[in-house]
Amino acid sequence: MKFRRSERLVDMTHYLLERPRVLVPLSFFAERYNSAKSSISEDLTIVKQTFENRGIGTLQTIPGAAGGVKFISMVNKNEAKSIIQNLCSLMENPERLLPGGYLYMTDFIGNPQIVNEVGRLLAAAFADREIDTIMTVATKGIPIALATATYLNVPVVIVRNDSKVTEGPTVSINYVSGSQKRIQTMVLSKKSLREGAKVLIVDDFMKAGGTINGMVNLLKEFNAIVAGIGVLVESEHSQERLVDDYVSLVKLIDVDVKEQQIKVIEGNYFSKVTQFLEEETV
Amino acid sequence: MKFRRSERLVDMTHYLLERPRVLVPLSFFAERYNSAKSSISEDLTIVKQTFENRGIGTLQTIPGAAGGVKFISMVNKNEAKSIIQNLCSLMENPERLLPGGYLYMTDFIGNPQIVNEVGRLLAAAFADREIDTIMTVATKGIPIALATATYLNVPVVIVRNDSKVTEGPTVSINYVSGSQKRIQTMVLSKKSLREGAKVLIVDDFMKAGGTINGMVNLLKEFNAIVAGIGVLVESEHSQERLVDDYVSLVKLIDVDVKEQQIKVIEGNYFSKVTQFLEEETV
Repeated sequence: MKFRRSERLVDMTHYLLERPRVLVPLSFFAERYNSAKSSISEDLTIVKQTFENRGIGTLQTIPGAAGGVKFISMVNKNEAKSIIQNLCSLMENPERLLPGGYLYMTDFIGNPQIVNEVGRLLAAAFADREIDTIMTVATKGIPIALATATYLNVPVVIVRNDSKVTEGPTVSINYVSGSQKRIQTMVLSKKSLREGAKVLIVDDFMKAGGTINGMVNLLKEFNAIVAGIGVLVESEHSQERLVDDYVSLVKLIDVDVKEQQIKVIEGNYFSKVTQFLEEETV
Repeated sequence: MKFRRSERLVDMTHYLLERPRVLVPLSFFAERYNSAKSSISEDLTIVKQTFENRGIGTLQTIPGAAGGVKFISMVNKNEAKSIIQNLCSLMENPERLLPGGYLYMTDFIGNPQIVNEVGRLLAAAFADREIDTIMTVATKGIPIALATATYLNVPVVIVRNDSKVTEGPTVSINYVSGSQKRIQTMVLSKKSLREGAKVLIVDDFMKAGGTINGMVNLLKEFNAIVAGIGVLVESEHSQERLVDDYVSLVKLIDVDVKEQQIKVIEGNYFSKVTQFLEEETV
């Protein structure tokens, strides 16, 4: 049975979107649709152009016998701007204020649309880096880490504050939580990370950077390499920051409990990230 | 600028896949592509047929002025079978054995491809139910809950064993962990769930069902309704099960530490789930 171009395009789009960064040989599609490679090639040109024009991503073509195409998730600058602006306004809602100036963010972290957008932006920020694994810390970093991992198609390892019987042998370190200067413990299953792995650290919130600095130190115990650091929110603070090379989507500038005001601005995303899809020229 | 059908199909496929269960009016697509509604209608027929033939899902058409299309993620039976078979063999790997007969599952829970497949199957199992929210318990339930939530397009609320300052006011209950008969505490942020919400409970592992039963009781405190229960793994056990109406993907039958053998079979998925996409008749 032959497949028409229209069906091929729909299925191919789904297939590639589900497998970011996976090399798919042209022959795979040719067999799947019982079609000539030349037709598949034309299909892929259409998919690539539409993905680029619509701010979805791009297709990388690897030539030769071992070649094929790879879907790389990317964003265009305007869309990234508008997603980040939206995150800022959602965060500035004074109903988030909790005693002590803490912010209620649980709804954020549990909303798959928001989490997937955050993951898409963080993945796009590190699209040109070689990344083997994403590391985060339980509990609130997990959704964002997993969403980022979906777009980069790499596994997530989860650092915990206590060791569980279901983790097997673990490596633990002590770290100083930056803002409270409290000594805490961080534990990671030994099996979960191989030596030399290139690791992207992802978390929901960074103040002085104590927790992230702890993860950096934990990686040293595994002889693993920090490939990048990405956070949803960085927070303004008076102490010296323990981490300096990171990408943040938004920045919490001020929490005024008395006036019930929260001030959130764009993070350093656009000064750190340089690769965006070109806007469509209509 | 007009868009050709081929571009429309690629973009429409992406747009719908990103927004499961969202009603998209035909007029939205007509404007987006500067095309006649009749052409959009034809496009959607192609997308629907390809989604159904390829085991991706279906498009529901809601007629009338307030109408449009909704993408519903579904699976066909053969694909579900093969995903579940694959989960069984991955779990039977004797390297997972830990002292005390526990199984190392951390790699599962951190692998986005596996987690998204599990989420897709669980979402498909409850595709015909009305669901407002997914509830899970930290830490290991989170990835699966979030993946399921992505396909059902509903938020996730995360129950914890301790209350955090960033959660605001909480409701807590005590529950008996089924297999160890230990009294534990379960805490949920008050803000995170509204009265009368229809809640799908999702977790990675269920033995006697103590934790899930705890979540059922916690929902009563919120006057919320259990819309369903879905787990990745159910485990054979000797005590009376505290939960009886649930969907499981796989069932852990036996862990033989001495012989280094783990036995895992299909869960009750195919006896509980009745709605599948028709196989393509080639």
